[in-house]
Amino acid sequence: MSDSFAARFAATRAAVGPLCWGLDPSSDLLEEWGLGDTPEGLDGFVDIALEAAVGAVGIIKAQSAFYERQGWRGIRTLGRLTEQARSAGLLVIIDAKRGDVGSTNDAYAQAYLGKDAPLACDALTVHPYLGLGAMDGFIARAHASKSCVLIVTRSSNPEGRNVQSATHAGQSVESGLLGEIGRRNGELTTDDLGPIGAVVAPVHITPPLDLVSARAIFLAPGLGAQGASVQDVAEVFATCRDRVIPSASRSLLSAGPDVAHLADRVSDMARTCRDLLAVS
Amino acid sequence: MSDSFAARFAATRAAVGPLCWGLDPSSDLLEEWGLGDTPEGLDGFVDIALEAAVGAVGIIKAQSAFYERQGWRGIRTLGRLTEQARSAGLLVIIDAKRGDVGSTNDAYAQAYLGKDAPLACDALTVHPYLGLGAMDGFIARAHASKSCVLIVTRSSNPEGRNVQSATHAGQSVESGLLGEIGRRNGELTTDDLGPIGAVVAPVHITPPLDLVSARAIFLAPGLGAQGASVQDVAEVFATCRDRVIPSASRSLLSAGPDVAHLADRVSDMARTCRDLLAVS
Repeated sequence: MSDSFAARFAATRAAVGPLCWGLDPSSDLLEEWGLGDTPEGLDGFVDIALEAAVGAVGIIKAQSAFYERQGWRGIRTLGRLTEQARSAGLLVIIDAKRGDVGSTNDAYAQAYLGKDAPLACDALTVHPYLGLGAMDGFIARAHASKSCVLIVTRSSNPEGRNVQSATHAGQSVESGLLGEIGRRNGELTTDDLGPIGAVVAPVHITPPLDLVSARAIFLAPGLGAQGASVQDVAEVFATCRDRVIPSASRSLLSAGPDVAHLADRVSDMARTCRDLLAVS
Repeated sequence: MSDSFAARFAATRAAVGPLCWGLDPSSDLLEEWGLGDTPEGLDGFVDIALEAAVGAVGIIKAQSAFYERQGWRGIRTLGRLTEQARSAGLLVIIDAKRGDVGSTNDAYAQAYLGKDAPLACDALTVHPYLGLGAMDGFIARAHASKSCVLIVTRSSNPEGRNVQSATHAGQSVESGLLGEIGRRNGELTTDDLGPIGAVVAPVHITPPLDLVSARAIFLAPGLGAQGASVQDVAEVFATCRDRVIPSASRSLLSAGPDVAHLADRVSDMARTCRDLLAVS
């Protein structure tokens, strides 16, 4: 893989737009789709989702929790989804929000980043509660393998504000993280964008974050069912529309389980994202 | 299971002391033990660790990262470890530091808490970067299944201070969390201790946290290789020595792979913990 994650995203964005389809097979969804809340039902979900995704969207995101809840068989299915999707040319984000002390982060990085990883993906989400300073293992492996580590910075749920907006040394936690991401990306590459991305929800909060200086790709979750519109994404990321990956899950999955219906719903949303997030 | 996690811990503590043995099969350790850094090597590690643990210690902690890095086979082994250890009467903590928005936390809770969970354990660690307010799913399942959710509050690594000591509404993030844990535990039970515990490192930081009001079991990681002594645990948790689970990993694993040597090392540390953390 010769191109950086940022370059692969730019190519995907040019071809089909920046939309990411979140594959969140909850218990309710598996039942609604008539598949059953079992490892076999999860396998059926993945077959349908893959068929609908290829050609309709350029990026998928698997929320690890919904695979973990089927035990090791669910993780086996997550591995299959990731491999088959990447083979079909899709970019795959595993939304795992891992994070720990340094030596443990090294082990998580070995699980998800780089071609020898059993669950190798294009980008992995991590949480910074134990500090960005403990993430050298994630960052080094993302850089070496041309993948991306997406640090949860501002989440889409209001319950996170007490932590994320708390202040340290005159800065909010989330602003401090973005500043540090920008500094580290600048050390790692002379490209516009580095291997450290951030998860920033498309919510209107003042003061706005300094997104541009982070030199980062942004994952913007919460489109649709969680209340944000593509217009919100366009406004919150107005300074860097070509760096944002808007992600929608339940609002797309509700068109299933018919593959054609799903693909239409996803294609429509992908077009809307491409149009409204065009860089003028 | 009729007793709460706190009651099961109290019984374990009275029998063999409060020590928790952290089972962290890193790549280096698997090679040092001559097992090989493979799923089969991990299986061999688990066999040795289980044989050494039973009778020597009352609680084990599996660090999920070291199982995830072997892919789905590693998770299958983690499930076997958890089941066999619990069948042998050990309490099992899965150190996964999961955490997300509410609907995703529900899915994580279904994976790890309660008897129908594929990886059912006695206690699960979670991180609060997306807010304790998003953790109703974890808390409800822990309460209903008499297990425990351990919220990472103050970690053992210095890199976490920027987030954990940041202030919101005049309180540090970590103090605010402990206060909220105490309030929620008080709502859930009239017992001394509730189903919401906290991970608090045995490090000397001023001002000290108000531990007693949290009505919580504490997991205190970082004993040994990470620099803290049992005496540090006794001092930091002086106000609530009967509520703390000190955890040691690498300093015990370095006695392996000989089962008898391992069991001796673990027994010695268990006795030290029982003596130094006795409530006078």
